[in-house]
Amino acid sequence: TGSSVNNDGGKRIRPLLVLLSATCYSENWHYSLPAASAIELIHNFSLIHDDIEDNSELRRGRETVWKRWGMAQGINAGDLMFSIAQSVCTDLVKHIESERVVKILKILNRTCVELTKGQYLDMAYEALSDVSQDEYLRMIQGKTASLITCSCKIGAIAGGASYSDAERFAEFGRNLGLAFQVKDDWLGIWGDEAVTGKSAESDLIVGKKTLPVVLGLMDSHTFREGYIGKTIDYEQAAYLTRILESAGIKERIEAESESLTRKALKELEDQDINKLPYNALIAVANQLTLRNK
Amino acid sequence: TGSSVNNDGGKRIRPLLVLLSATCYSENWHYSLPAASAIELIHNFSLIHDDIEDNSELRRGRETVWKRWGMAQGINAGDLMFSIAQSVCTDLVKHIESERVVKILKILNRTCVELTKGQYLDMAYEALSDVSQDEYLRMIQGKTASLITCSCKIGAIAGGASYSDAERFAEFGRNLGLAFQVKDDWLGIWGDEAVTGKSAESDLIVGKKTLPVVLGLMDSHTFREGYIGKTIDYEQAAYLTRILESAGIKERIEAESESLTRKALKELEDQDINKLPYNALIAVANQLTLRNK
Repeated sequence: TGSSVNNDGGKRIRPLLVLLSATCYSENWHYSLPAASAIELIHNFSLIHDDIEDNSELRRGRETVWKRWGMAQGINAGDLMFSIAQSVCTDLVKHIESERVVKILKILNRTCVELTKGQYLDMAYEALSDVSQDEYLRMIQGKTASLITCSCKIGAIAGGASYSDAERFAEFGRNLGLAFQVKDDWLGIWGDEAVTGKSAESDLIVGKKTLPVVLGLMDSHTFREGYIGKTIDYEQAAYLTRILESAGIKERIEAESESLTRKALKELEDQDINKLPYNALIAVANQLTLRNK
Repeated sequence: TGSSVNNDGGKRIRPLLVLLSATCYSENWHYSLPAASAIELIHNFSLIHDDIEDNSELRRGRETVWKRWGMAQGINAGDLMFSIAQSVCTDLVKHIESERVVKILKILNRTCVELTKGQYLDMAYEALSDVSQDEYLRMIQGKTASLITCSCKIGAIAGGASYSDAERFAEFGRNLGLAFQVKDDWLGIWGDEAVTGKSAESDLIVGKKTLPVVLGLMDSHTFREGYIGKTIDYEQAAYLTRILESAGIKERIEAESESLTRKALKELEDQDINKLPYNALIAVANQLTLRNK
C-alpha cells in the first residue's frame, strides 16, 4: 500500500537478484532471463493493483494505470500482466530441465500467495490505530521480503544450485528484503525528496503503519499523543518527525536495516560459488541499505 | 462482463471437462484433479474481478465479493485465488511427468491472456452502439470459449494424449465453448427466470452486446430504431424481444448453438479413446445446448 512500499526507484532490483543468483552457479546467465522477466512483471502487476486498492494517482512521477485508463481496465491490465509473467516463466524449459521449472513455478506462485497476504495485512492495518512490531514484520515479510526471497531462490535453482543451497539464497533474500523495506520506511520520512520522488513526511501524513510509526507508538508517549486520532498535516508531520528523532528512532531504524543486511550477507559466506556474481550481490545488498542516505 | 457471460449456473462444467478429457486416455482420473481445480479457481477468480469491473452486486443470487468486502479486498482476493490456482496446478507433478506439466501451465497461462483480451473487448464494446458479428465472436472466443478449450486440451494432455490428439480436444472445446456462450446469450433474453436466477430481458436492459442484439442490429431496421440511443426499460425490452422473435432471430440462435455443438462432437469422432468418458462428453455437450429450454 502507498507510494513508498515496494518502491525501488526503477532500479529493477528483483530481476537483477535473479540473474546474479543464477550466475553464482552457471555461466549461462541468459538461461534464467524468463525467471527474471517473470519476477519483474509480477512486481509491476502487483503495483498496478495496489495503486487501485490504495486509490493512488501517481507512481514513479506519472499517472497510475487506473487513473489513466479507468479502474476496470486497470484491474484487467494487471491480470494480463500477471498472466504474461506466468506464461513467460514457462519459457525456462528452453534451457532448464522441466523438473526445475515446475519447482520454480511452485515457488513463484506460493510467493504470489504471500504477496496477497501482505497486501491484505497492509490494508487491514490502515484501519487500526496501533500495530505491533510483530504484526509489522509479518506484513513486510509478505509485501516486500517474499518477492525478493523468491528472486534469489529461483535464480539459484535456475542456475543449477542444489535445493539446499537455494535455501541459503532464500534466507539471504529474506533478510535483504526486510532490510530493504526497513530502509524504505526510513526514506518515507527522512528521504531526500529529490531522490525518492515524493514529498518528505508523506508516510506520516497518509497514516501508513511504517516502522518509524510502529516504534514511535510503542516507545514514545509523546508520539502516541501526537499521532493517534489526530489529523496529520505537514506541520504535525514535521513535529512528529522531531519526536521520533529525539527518541533515537531514526538511528535505531538505520541500525536495524544495516544489521539485517549483514545477516543477509552472512548466509552467502563460505559457499562455493562464482566470485564475480557473489561480489556483485554484496555490492547490491550494501547499495540497498545505503541508498539516498 | 455482466451477469450472463460465463454463468454456468454452478454446474462446474470446466473441471468436469478436464476430468472427462483426461479419462478418455487414462483410468487414473484423479491424477488430473490439480488441473481441474486450477481451471475452476481461474474461472472464479475471473468472475470476482469481472464483478468489480462491471459493478455487479449480485452473483449466483448472492452478494458479490467486492460488494461484501469492499473493492480493494475484492481485487486482492481475486489475485489470491489466481495465485492459488497456479500453485495447485504445479501439484500435477505428483503423478504426471514434468515436461507435460510445464506444457499444461503454458497452455493455461496463454488462456489467461486470452481471457483478459476477451474482457477488454467486452468492456470496450459496451461503449459502442454497434458491434459486428466478427467482433462479437472474437470477444466470446476470449471470454468463454478459451477457458473451455483449455479445459479439454489440458485434460487430454494430463491423461496422456499425444499433443496432436490434444489439439482435437482443443477444437472440440472451442466449438463447445462457442455453443455454450451463444446459448447463454439466448438465455439472457428468453431464459426462464426461475432457472437462470436473473430477470428475463436483463441483457437488453443493461446494454450488453450479446448475439441477439448483434443480429438484431445487423438485420432488423426496426430493432436498430428501438435500440440505438434509447434508454431500455422493461417495457422497451419486451418490445425489442418481440421484434427479435418476428425477425426469426430466436430460432437462428438456437440453431447456431446446436450446429456448433454438432461441430464440436465431430472432432471427437473416430478417436481411439475410452468409450465411457467419451459418451459422457457427448452427454455434457448436448446438455449445455439444451439446458433450460
